[in-house]
Amino acid sequence: MRADLLQRAAARQQARAEAGLLRRLRSVTATTAPWIVLDGRRLLSFASNDYLGLAGHAQVREALCSAAARWGVGATAAHLLGGHRAPHAELEAALAAWTGRERALLFATGYMANLGVLDALLQSGDVCVQDKLNHASLLDGARLCGAELRRYPHGDVDAAARQLAACPHAAALLASDGVFSMDGDVAPLARLAALAQQQNATLLIDDAHGLGVRGAQGAGSVAQAGLDARQVPILMATLGKALGTQGAFVAGDAVLIDALTQFARAHVYSTAPPPALAAATLAALRLAQQGEHLRARLQARIAQLRSGAAALGLHLLPSDTPIQPLWLGSAVTAQDWSSALEARGFHVPAIRPPTVAQGQARLRIALSAAHGESDVERLLDALGALRQHHAQPAPDAGA
Amino acid sequence: MRADLLQRAAARQQARAEAGLLRRLRSVTATTAPWIVLDGRRLLSFASNDYLGLAGHAQVREALCSAAARWGVGATAAHLLGGHRAPHAELEAALAAWTGRERALLFATGYMANLGVLDALLQSGDVCVQDKLNHASLLDGARLCGAELRRYPHGDVDAAARQLAACPHAAALLASDGVFSMDGDVAPLARLAALAQQQNATLLIDDAHGLGVRGAQGAGSVAQAGLDARQVPILMATLGKALGTQGAFVAGDAVLIDALTQFARAHVYSTAPPPALAAATLAALRLAQQGEHLRARLQARIAQLRSGAAALGLHLLPSDTPIQPLWLGSAVTAQDWSSALEARGFHVPAIRPPTVAQGQARLRIALSAAHGESDVERLLDALGALRQHHAQPAPDAGA
Ligand SMILES: Cc1ncc(COP(=O)(O)O)c(C=O)c1O
Ligand SMILES: Cc1ncc(COP(=O)(O)O)c(C=O)c1O
Repeated sequence: MRADLLQRAAARQQARAEAGLLRRLRSVTATTAPWIVLDGRRLLSFASNDYLGLAGHAQVREALCSAAARWGVGATAAHLLGGHRAPHAELEAALAAWTGRERALLFATGYMANLGVLDALLQSGDVCVQDKLNHASLLDGARLCGAELRRYPHGDVDAAARQLAACPHAAALLASDGVFSMDGDVAPLARLAALAQQQNATLLIDDAHGLGVRGAQGAGSVAQAGLDARQVPILMATLGKALGTQGAFVAGDAVLIDALTQFARAHVYSTAPPPALAAATLAALRLAQQGEHLRARLQARIAQLRSGAAALGLHLLPSDTPIQPLWLGSAVTAQDWSSALEARGFHVPAIRPPTVAQGQARLRIALSAAHGESDVERLLDALGALRQHHAQPAPDAGA
Repeated sequence: MRADLLQRAAARQQARAEAGLLRRLRSVTATTAPWIVLDGRRLLSFASNDYLGLAGHAQVREALCSAAARWGVGATAAHLLGGHRAPHAELEAALAAWTGRERALLFATGYMANLGVLDALLQSGDVCVQDKLNHASLLDGARLCGAELRRYPHGDVDAAARQLAACPHAAALLASDGVFSMDGDVAPLARLAALAQQQNATLLIDDAHGLGVRGAQGAGSVAQAGLDARQVPILMATLGKALGTQGAFVAGDAVLIDALTQFARAHVYSTAPPPALAAATLAALRLAQQGEHLRARLQARIAQLRSGAAALGLHLLPSDTPIQPLWLGSAVTAQDWSSALEARGFHVPAIRPPTVAQGQARLRIALSAAHGESDVERLLDALGALRQHHAQPAPDAGA
């Protein structure tokens, strides 16, 4: 008799519950950034990826509504079968121009963009070399395409070089987050680009958390590092973080975008996103491009949090991005801190295994231009008060 | 020296071009269902999956706008990290109630829902038995999870039984489209359910093209076949077709939904869709539930097209759904017919390999309640005129 799939899943869930690692889906019942209402309580949120505060911006909402009046809601078909509408085309052109690439192609989500690209370009016999802390979607993309996946220790370009050198004949993709989603640090982009060129590997940078936040006009980490399409031939980024909407794109030379149009199954075999959402994203893009004041405000919050935490003797992982992790080590400790903060009126989720490695649990404090100076002050006060009762464990070597 | 990934992709694209199978991404510059403007010309479209004409419905648009005023545009985080908002929870409850299931879980797209479910439940050593004509996302889900994929000839329940019987100890998932996306026929649902129970396999039905269209109150093919959650434990459907928005859900018992919340990486590691989109979908759901007049109108168009085509001696594949394929066999012939129809003012895309098997190219005529009787009449007139110059090849045994 074969095992029942649902019983097996239930057993796996039970094991996760016993390890204290169960996830809970809680529903936010109201929001006015940076505030949310959760379980009937108003909380100051440090959990949002809306780094520039654009998700609720009047111009972004208005672009959504006026485009919906013209285009309806759904795109009603996949891009290649009539679902590609003028707002998609305009957004693609604007994203390409913003990131200094020849062309761009929209995907419904970043998860699909990463799967779509890796699956379109890689096949069994190829090698995909990735940073160990890359986003789950890059790992899943490698699993999907059947290439050999090699993961190098976080940020270790020499290890990446050894992994590439170990299979000199396999076609190779080198992939890294630009800004790491749970750590907030920036990849060694220039060194990765040099390695890729030297090894004839194709470099993909996932700049989900860099776009809008870093570089001149917010063009992202890759622009900030001064790397062009020859050095970073595959630039991917998402629209659901600094741009405050949803979706993703891949930008690069026409040869890349043409190939994805033909072969990226996540693009070909999925309904195009609502044209109105593309219009809203285009409005957000314009605001982000002109958003030096927002980025300045965000940087001020980052500096404020880091110096305040240091003054309290709290250890934040090294990061100059809006992602400011407070390292806590054990999942139980991280959950305790998150709960204690929630009791004091703050939403700061604990990030626990398997999202991070065993023993690497943390609070992921996400800052936004929507936060005022007093918001960060209040968080620091709460963290200071918490520290009286809960000592922050000393970070281990891996942190 | 290793091969360059982009050069290899370009070569693959060149081969596709030489086979006459290149896809072209064209942008629609205006739309008033069922009309679109393409390359500056107004075309009557038979390419939309907006089967009930809800994508442009005023109540759906208004729900989007008023929810955006309250919630902003993006959800700003993954569901588990604060992105789950009241409109998501309300929509999930309504979808569960509509489909007669205990619970439901939203995904950003149907592509992600299928990958998420298969990857959460299956692992290497398991078997995934699928209809050969299942949607690409079900195939990709099987590739991702590493289970053994066995594909049975279209609709052949006996073959499926043999495939399951051949591996009696492997945990097994049996998966089928409810309504096949490129053929329009309905899976033998009751027989698949009986087989799954007899074999202790878990049955998944992807009802992307049945929800809203079939069954009492549009609850879908599975409801129409009278199959409950014991018989079809995993019901998946999309929101971008009859509901006219975007996204997807999986519905079933709490044990399934709880497991997906923990283990479906496409859910865990991706930004939640805009709450306003969930609100728009909820408005569409209410209209679809009460949409017997829309379904009656749609059925009238289907009957009209089928009897009109028969009178013209044109061969439509057997289907009583809005998907009415005109079988043409070769890709060149399908492209010719599509182009000739476009020259006459109609948008009816040719579906060619690899989307369908070699020699199985067709026009996919998609009907909608947005079509009037005169729209279908005009299409029939054009098809009749076309037939004077282009003979429809005799369908082969496989069609
Ligand atoms: C680095 C990175 N890549 C990709 C994704 C996936 O993008 P999306 O949320 O649009 O699916 C995320 C976040 O979710 C991310 O942090
Ligand atoms: C049967 C079927 N399943 C899944 C999907 C994927 O859904 P989505 O378009 O929301 O990605 C589609 C259509 O695209 C489909 O036809």
